[in-house]
Amino acid sequence: MAAASLVGMTDTIPDFFAVIPAGGIGSRLWPLSRAEAPKFLHDLTGSGVSLLRETWDRLLPLTGPERISVVTGVAHGPAVEKTLPDIPAVNVFHELDPRESAAAIGLAAAVLHRRDPHVVIGSFAADHVIRRQRAFEFAVRQAVAVAREGFICTIGITPSEPSVGFGYIKTGEELDITDAPMASRVERFVEKPDLDTARQYYADRSFLWNAGMFIARADVLLGELEANEPGLHAGLVEIAAAWDTDARDEVLGRVWPSLKKIAIDYAVAEPAAEKGRLAVVPGQFDWDDVGDFASLWNLVSNGRRHEMSILGDNRGVLADESHGLVVSQTDRVIAVVGLDDVIVVDTADALLVTTSAHAQRVKSVVGALHERGRDSVL
Amino acid sequence: MAAASLVGMTDTIPDFFAVIPAGGIGSRLWPLSRAEAPKFLHDLTGSGVSLLRETWDRLLPLTGPERISVVTGVAHGPAVEKTLPDIPAVNVFHELDPRESAAAIGLAAAVLHRRDPHVVIGSFAADHVIRRQRAFEFAVRQAVAVAREGFICTIGITPSEPSVGFGYIKTGEELDITDAPMASRVERFVEKPDLDTARQYYADRSFLWNAGMFIARADVLLGELEANEPGLHAGLVEIAAAWDTDARDEVLGRVWPSLKKIAIDYAVAEPAAEKGRLAVVPGQFDWDDVGDFASLWNLVSNGRRHEMSILGDNRGVLADESHGLVVSQTDRVIAVVGLDDVIVVDTADALLVTTSAHAQRVKSVVGALHERGRDSVL
Repeated sequence: MAAASLVGMTDTIPDFFAVIPAGGIGSRLWPLSRAEAPKFLHDLTGSGVSLLRETWDRLLPLTGPERISVVTGVAHGPAVEKTLPDIPAVNVFHELDPRESAAAIGLAAAVLHRRDPHVVIGSFAADHVIRRQRAFEFAVRQAVAVAREGFICTIGITPSEPSVGFGYIKTGEELDITDAPMASRVERFVEKPDLDTARQYYADRSFLWNAGMFIARADVLLGELEANEPGLHAGLVEIAAAWDTDARDEVLGRVWPSLKKIAIDYAVAEPAAEKGRLAVVPGQFDWDDVGDFASLWNLVSNGRRHEMSILGDNRGVLADESHGLVVSQTDRVIAVVGLDDVIVVDTADALLVTTSAHAQRVKSVVGALHERGRDSVL
Repeated sequence: MAAASLVGMTDTIPDFFAVIPAGGIGSRLWPLSRAEAPKFLHDLTGSGVSLLRETWDRLLPLTGPERISVVTGVAHGPAVEKTLPDIPAVNVFHELDPRESAAAIGLAAAVLHRRDPHVVIGSFAADHVIRRQRAFEFAVRQAVAVAREGFICTIGITPSEPSVGFGYIKTGEELDITDAPMASRVERFVEKPDLDTARQYYADRSFLWNAGMFIARADVLLGELEANEPGLHAGLVEIAAAWDTDARDEVLGRVWPSLKKIAIDYAVAEPAAEKGRLAVVPGQFDWDDVGDFASLWNLVSNGRRHEMSILGDNRGVLADESHGLVVSQTDRVIAVVGLDDVIVVDTADALLVTTSAHAQRVKSVVGALHERGRDSVL
């Protein structure tokens, strides 16, 4: 299914199926994000819809509504179906419990491969923010073309700063694939670097951020999984064989809890890179994983960091000699006086006050509250 | 009614009548303190009772329950009577609207003088914190003795730091009054000084803080008022003549709104000082006007300022790499991460986040909220 012209193409891609893992709570965004209301169900951009819905809308021009699946926890099934009313029920995959990304994406790959052995799948996080739709589509279309050639293809983000918060992808030789003019082989994967190393990568320009987007033929992905994690692969194949039968619940209940918890980066992408089978297409779009409140502030403020940014429709926020981010889920009056880089998150049952510099520490608060038996607010 | 021995005396003082002006909202303690729940009705010390009740309890050994009056707004009458169940109804003076301290104390003085021409009155704010009861009583007993001699007597607080937040009293020559061994004439009153001046005063030791406590014979106080503010005096005398008659409401409604708004410091104390008729007894007790959240933090922390102090019985406060003060009137979980000298005040309908250094600015927030029409939380 090669297209003659890629740029400006608007049709959906018939052999392509998007997989949206919607699992993470986003603990560093507590108390906004929590078990009952995970990050992907929130509107963090002021768009009026949740991040999950934005992800769906972004993929729709590439897939149509029939070819997007969501892998999510049983508890979030109803919310996902409410958020995505057009999703076919067979495309919602329920995890019994969270077992990390290799199991989640592998489950979808195994089931979709049984339904269509030639399918190309692409995984896209449910809770990232992407701006510049055309550039996103252009990257995905290229990645699908690369995947058809038997590569596992990732979309690497052009760094906008020397971040120490992301892993990096070192691009290697250019690939000669007609419909993927920007594609390269991946030379290596790099874990989150220290600041000096990040600065070198940033200056180098051949390093891209790993945004966790992987596009591959389902058979290629499963083959890589079989080579690297045979136990996990066997379990997923067994579940997939039973998935569209009456035996699903029995097999899932027996096998799922035994699956190894491992990120797809380690189970698939890094080993593939070592074998020269990982490719990358640069994503020339704005991408943000909104990993913590510093990141959220950056997103909401849109660069106006000398002001107080407000997320939520609370008209009762008063900032005096202050700047930062107020997230309000209540209609309480909130006055902030004389604080810089402050983060105030006000929900019905929990309040967080911190600074952007301490945004990463919020996760430890969640741990401490769990130890105190305060799980009702987590 | 001179007592032979003052120290260790435990009887009430028969000719003495305490007046508690309970009027100020305490805007710098918003949103804890507000029109419907002014500062004097709050327990700010963790004692289990309000500041007004503490003031009553402190005066009781000097007066008994029959000789304490409260001057307060009409709206606060029920709360005052609930807080002070033993107060005789005739001792609660309702202001039609707030007209500052000369009118409030002058009203009590005029009515009490009609009821007993020989009475000595003493005014004590409803919302200050005093520790060391015996030292307090010792000072008041001396001040009453001084007042009987025809002076207006204030109790000056020995400064614990070179504060720029209070006015100062310069003590002059020693007075030779048997039952007031520590009494001096006041040389002059000084407005709130700058820091350099405050440091000189602090080093000097003859300067005391003006805590707004005045003790005087009612006839002397009224005479001073007549000399300095004849219009105000005439109005108060007219109201007092009608007070214990059926004409009270009519006269009060007609005259009260016309009374000049002026602090008793300017209407009585300063002019008296210029004439050599103002005396001072040093108060050797801990005194705090709890004027803002920095002051409240100081009070609640009891010197442990490297910790997070908590006012309220909320068990869900979690401080991580933070110190300051959390005031909680809810049972919400409150997490504070990475903030020093922070003030968080969490009430059902309003939240304040500030720092101790900005404590004085809180008053301007109240003004801004008023301008925005948010009076329901003020």
